[in-house]
Amino acid sequence: MNIVDIIIRKRNGEALTPEEIHFFVEGVKNETIADYQTSALLMAIFLRGMDETEVATLTREMALSGDSLSFPERLRPIVDKHSSGGVGDKTSLVIAPVVAACGLPIAKLSGRGLGHTGGTIDKLESIPGFRTELTEAEFIRNVEEDGIAIMGQSADIAPVDKVLYALRDVTGTVDSIPLIAASIMSKKLADGSDAIVLDVKYGSGAFMKTPEEAIELAQVMVGIGEANGKKTLALITDMTQPLGRAVGNALEVREAVETLQGGGPEDFRAVCVALASAMLLAGEKAESREEAEAMVQEAVTSGRALQKLKAMVQNQGGDVAALDDLSKLPQATLEQDVVATQTGVVVAIDAETIGKASLALGAGRRRKEDAIDPAVGLVLSKKVGDAVTAGDSLVTLYANDPERVEEAEGLVREAYQIEAREATGKTAVVYARVTQGGVERLDAAKGADDAADEA
Amino acid sequence: MNIVDIIIRKRNGEALTPEEIHFFVEGVKNETIADYQTSALLMAIFLRGMDETEVATLTREMALSGDSLSFPERLRPIVDKHSSGGVGDKTSLVIAPVVAACGLPIAKLSGRGLGHTGGTIDKLESIPGFRTELTEAEFIRNVEEDGIAIMGQSADIAPVDKVLYALRDVTGTVDSIPLIAASIMSKKLADGSDAIVLDVKYGSGAFMKTPEEAIELAQVMVGIGEANGKKTLALITDMTQPLGRAVGNALEVREAVETLQGGGPEDFRAVCVALASAMLLAGEKAESREEAEAMVQEAVTSGRALQKLKAMVQNQGGDVAALDDLSKLPQATLEQDVVATQTGVVVAIDAETIGKASLALGAGRRRKEDAIDPAVGLVLSKKVGDAVTAGDSLVTLYANDPERVEEAEGLVREAYQIEAREATGKTAVVYARVTQGGVERLDAAKGADDAADEA
Repeated sequence: MNIVDIIIRKRNGEALTPEEIHFFVEGVKNETIADYQTSALLMAIFLRGMDETEVATLTREMALSGDSLSFPERLRPIVDKHSSGGVGDKTSLVIAPVVAACGLPIAKLSGRGLGHTGGTIDKLESIPGFRTELTEAEFIRNVEEDGIAIMGQSADIAPVDKVLYALRDVTGTVDSIPLIAASIMSKKLADGSDAIVLDVKYGSGAFMKTPEEAIELAQVMVGIGEANGKKTLALITDMTQPLGRAVGNALEVREAVETLQGGGPEDFRAVCVALASAMLLAGEKAESREEAEAMVQEAVTSGRALQKLKAMVQNQGGDVAALDDLSKLPQATLEQDVVATQTGVVVAIDAETIGKASLALGAGRRRKEDAIDPAVGLVLSKKVGDAVTAGDSLVTLYANDPERVEEAEGLVREAYQIEAREATGKTAVVYARVTQGGVERLDAAKGADDAADEA
Repeated sequence: MNIVDIIIRKRNGEALTPEEIHFFVEGVKNETIADYQTSALLMAIFLRGMDETEVATLTREMALSGDSLSFPERLRPIVDKHSSGGVGDKTSLVIAPVVAACGLPIAKLSGRGLGHTGGTIDKLESIPGFRTELTEAEFIRNVEEDGIAIMGQSADIAPVDKVLYALRDVTGTVDSIPLIAASIMSKKLADGSDAIVLDVKYGSGAFMKTPEEAIELAQVMVGIGEANGKKTLALITDMTQPLGRAVGNALEVREAVETLQGGGPEDFRAVCVALASAMLLAGEKAESREEAEAMVQEAVTSGRALQKLKAMVQNQGGDVAALDDLSKLPQATLEQDVVATQTGVVVAIDAETIGKASLALGAGRRRKEDAIDPAVGLVLSKKVGDAVTAGDSLVTLYANDPERVEEAEGLVREAYQIEAREATGKTAVVYARVTQGGVERLDAAKGADDAADEA
């Protein structure tokens, strides 16, 4: 077997065999295949695609290229959750303690982020003292004792994915659905979970711009999971505007705590309830969606979900007092409102542009080695569908560097689109549920269809 | 401008601008573009193609990436000839002296070969003492004094082509018509000629397997030449069986000399006459094809063409006596006939398999660093359309290593297809002429159509 023949077969649109895919992944890992051969194959995959079996095999081989976690039988099933990422997405901070409070153990590996804010790990680290580097023994002990632990991903989870991702980034082969799906799922296959709930977002703040693209990606990921023996389902959720109101690391922790206290923004709560319910169903803690949703509500109203978050913070060295007194979280020195210059209704808030404003303030990383500022970010006072009067605050910026405020303000103004008309109702945020059985369109999809009918 | 955007544009099927192509070729030359980016772009070009303007620009930029020759005005026009390569293709050894004898100067850069035999340079070096490394001054002086010189290509002709070719070879992007055409023509644009006659072969012994593929490649190459100010035309010729009878370096020199003496195989003579006539027309030494063909015939029958070959051999240090007494050329120690085991008519001789037999005997190189044996090879006694009786010799093998004979004999048997039927006429070997004006189908095409009508 040789790599040139494999490249030629894929170039010609043929399906690669499991043996060929194994040979490729091994060769990348052992560096017997040159980067220029890998990038040629990636481009051929980009343009010729991969069928279900190929993608499932590629993903499994990538997962097998590195370390994997395994949990004691008594803790299983372990249900994982993965979000394809978006602006203001702090769902893990809420869902993990909610689900753990319902008796389903959470043992989650998370990443840092490149982009508008940090990842879940960065957000948790904005809690003073919180440690995200645990030994495997500590991690498993915390899950056993309190049913919850979140730690940073080891460098040796799916190392071939790192090589492929770095090459894709510099060879114009990033936005290929099979390659995106294999990249995400390779890390999930290695994390020892038995089931996975995916949150695949669509909209300007997400990788997939339309619901249909998100559904396509979700279908490939669900196929990969199921082909590799993991129960897998995906919710397709709205990222046309930021999720919730807070964007920025400590600001998002604050919003998550408020949500666990029974408050929090409506759209964010809705996504959390949908995802947490789906996890309870996947973990066989509930028998129907209604039962699962009731369990989630009860975990919040009883305060047990917040207790789980506190238990995790305690176990991982964080300052629990900061969750009771949110002013103990990192605070920015500057606060400035961006006010509306016209009266009307917010018809759109471009999530990607809000993300850029957050990045401009220092909440995210442009490069892997950049430091993030946990205190900075922004909070939206007005969301799509809200009425505004000229002079109202649209967004509050939180900054530590006065020189960064102007750029962020300009971006916020660019993101908001206000029109002089009557206020409309809010749209739902969960668009569809994707399982191996098919695609079920939900409230947001129906709302979108109604709007289309009206127009 | 950055290379990732360029890759993405080509990946999306857009045409690259001249500035983008310049940026790419410069980046490859200066090594500011990584090999893995180059190979990704090559794969995108392979799968998405390039339009006429892109290919012409790419070729020009590749030519400009290195040295170029230029000839004094008094020698011009210089007409070059390039063959896409095949088994038994020794046309340059005949055409160059014929054309020079007709008053059109020949100043030709040639390469060594990878494959079944050496290239023109290797064949010439089988003449004892012949030097193919000349200084530019020597080269031009020989052309001025005797109207003929052939030397090896400098390493600095189109250096970017070498990088691209090496990468294509290991990334499954060799057989792309735009990339093949740009590779060949970049060296031709740099060689200082004013016009070029291309011999594009089709058949199992050629890169292009069908006449239609060969026409497509020829059209792209003619377009590149004309777009860059060179009069360019192509003949499409038959390589479904070996050209002539001799395959092997000294054996081919012998056949070329016999042809210049007025003998030689009919198919080989026909291709030489067609190409030499086309060169005389391109160089404005003749006004019609008939006039050009008559000049070619006269150059041979008068002995002036053979005199030109001798002059070149003399100028370049070779043993002229070896051309008068061909037994002074390198001789193999073993000679063995492969005889027919059945009676009938030869209906096919697979050129590629005959090439492999020649390579097995040591006449060609498997790797760039391999040495070739100038004496070995094979001579076909029977060609397609010939009647054979069981026991007749089909091919004579010339070897120096008895261990290599068996493999070669097996390959020869595999190559010949003999059927029990009446002998058919010979088919013509020049299929079409391709110019900027279009494609003119010639004798071989008409013969093929007639055969198709019959069937």
